[in-house]
Amino acid sequence: MKKRILSGMRPTGSLHIGHLVGALDNWQKLQDEYECLFMAADWHALMSEYESPQVLKENIIDNVIDWLACGIDPEKSIIFIQSHVKEHLELCMFFSVITPLGLLERCPTYKEGLREINNRDLHTYGFLGYPLLQAADIMLYKAGIVPVGEDQLPHLELTRQIVRKFNNLYKSPFFSEPEALLTKVNRLLGLDGRKMSKSYNNYIALSEEPEVIARKVQSMFTDPLRIKVSDSGHPQECNVRKYYAIFGRDEIRVIDERCQEARIGCTECKKELAKILISFLGPIQDKRKELLKDKDKVLDILREGEEKAREIASQTIQEVKNLLFSNSSAFRSKSGRHSRVNGNPERV
Amino acid sequence: MKKRILSGMRPTGSLHIGHLVGALDNWQKLQDEYECLFMAADWHALMSEYESPQVLKENIIDNVIDWLACGIDPEKSIIFIQSHVKEHLELCMFFSVITPLGLLERCPTYKEGLREINNRDLHTYGFLGYPLLQAADIMLYKAGIVPVGEDQLPHLELTRQIVRKFNNLYKSPFFSEPEALLTKVNRLLGLDGRKMSKSYNNYIALSEEPEVIARKVQSMFTDPLRIKVSDSGHPQECNVRKYYAIFGRDEIRVIDERCQEARIGCTECKKELAKILISFLGPIQDKRKELLKDKDKVLDILREGEEKAREIASQTIQEVKNLLFSNSSAFRSKSGRHSRVNGNPERV
Repeated sequence: MKKRILSGMRPTGSLHIGHLVGALDNWQKLQDEYECLFMAADWHALMSEYESPQVLKENIIDNVIDWLACGIDPEKSIIFIQSHVKEHLELCMFFSVITPLGLLERCPTYKEGLREINNRDLHTYGFLGYPLLQAADIMLYKAGIVPVGEDQLPHLELTRQIVRKFNNLYKSPFFSEPEALLTKVNRLLGLDGRKMSKSYNNYIALSEEPEVIARKVQSMFTDPLRIKVSDSGHPQECNVRKYYAIFGRDEIRVIDERCQEARIGCTECKKELAKILISFLGPIQDKRKELLKDKDKVLDILREGEEKAREIASQTIQEVKNLLFSNSSAFRSKSGRHSRVNGNPERV
Repeated sequence: MKKRILSGMRPTGSLHIGHLVGALDNWQKLQDEYECLFMAADWHALMSEYESPQVLKENIIDNVIDWLACGIDPEKSIIFIQSHVKEHLELCMFFSVITPLGLLERCPTYKEGLREINNRDLHTYGFLGYPLLQAADIMLYKAGIVPVGEDQLPHLELTRQIVRKFNNLYKSPFFSEPEALLTKVNRLLGLDGRKMSKSYNNYIALSEEPEVIARKVQSMFTDPLRIKVSDSGHPQECNVRKYYAIFGRDEIRVIDERCQEARIGCTECKKELAKILISFLGPIQDKRKELLKDKDKVLDILREGEEKAREIASQTIQEVKNLLFSNSSAFRSKSGRHSRVNGNPERV
């Protein structure tokens, strides 16, 4: 049996080539080896976007269309929207009641979020529970494998801690601790050499028009040591060269030579890169346009994925309930009288 | 139109006469004036009972049978189990993402819980969110009125704060702040004069057998100033007299006189109280036995209540989603191309 993988993206905006290189390419490869669940994590998105949630719904469809256009295959993988499978919140609540506050407060990514994200207020109850919902996402499907970057390892470790606590408390090896699949993905920097990000406006969207791609590539920073065209270039110092390394593997050797020998200027080099990118994105954008015309198909794919996800999810929740509440039979009555039970009900 | 009320009990044990006097009597009266929803708050119970959840399922049915036996009428009121209406957790999540941590950490009942409940670990994420789930319980049904004791006022104030934050953030007077219905209820002390509680084993269960009632009443502490039977008693100092004040209103004047004039001893006084209690609980216990024989009926009542509750709840959730996500049409596309949206999706 194939091992199961869960991965998700927060639908906080449109996808760019950084996502393609950093995640979607990897998802696409994982589909053959694993049973994959790919999720639009809209609850997680809401945790940071709660002040302007209007765009989330639109983003979800937009992102899923990009997933499909990039080769995520609904015949192979389960594609769904987190909030449409209500069991995520149920398992999250089962985890909430057993998870020490300190465990969440000490989570490095939580502290980092509070420290680094200054344009929104994340001192909320919901944001503190971010990794708890992730744990529920993963364990709801008993996903044994979670593809993560190194920065996500603390979250996965927290999932493993919760699993251990759950299993100990309910005296059963019910959940297996998920394993990280540390994937060596290419990191694509933004046009200006910083992290590619919407807030820096230094990205190329997957849906970008050819003219825009050409213009954006032309604006890229290149080798800072090459002042004149007649100077020989230093490809290793050049951000444009990093794009060639990913998208222009056939061309890179020749480009390196021409650059070092000052036989090509940066303007021309970027023109060629733009052509490569435009032709690389062409088939993706064609597929995207096709899907935009057949939106019902996308909704059908999501509905189907939702059903498949829910089937697994509701099974897990039923098993959790059996495990927690099994010693009790709601109507076991002794000697004609209902057997008394412990405790003292209190008003809520 | 009748105003709507929500009230609930945590199914942490079997019900005793303290619950009858402190809550059920009140619920029973509210049914005619208001549209009432009465809920077995099993998620709230799990927050403290997560270490031994086995009894919860059994308690729920046992408690609901007592509710029905005490006159809670499914023709008038909606009776249901919190966890069966999944929308509670959805609204709770919508509230979670907007609720500052500090608001919950400063909640007096939270601090009191941590300080006073020492036999279980409540330093959990779930327990911190206790009043948040309460807010969701109330607002899911847009209950305008919440019957509370004074100790519950901070929780209700927190609900009101969350409602204000929600309405401000989403620029709509969507939820109305619920009002407290401060009910003057009788406080029945335990057999030993302390708070009636399972942990003190000083209670009389609603389902208690007559012999047990007689024995338990006989063990009650009485007037500490009356040493010998020939001493005249001080009814105002006597816990037994407080029981007469509630259950033996017809007898109390005569009993007071006989006590003060030393014409009745404590043993006999308690024998008479036991008789009163046994005959008071008689009809409740008969109804209870009847319901225990027809358990399917109880399950049907809960199923019906659940359906009615879910109808209101899912309507509210749909409205919340419309409010938050309405500015976006998932498939509005301009000039043949999907309109781009803000933001930068990130991997979860």
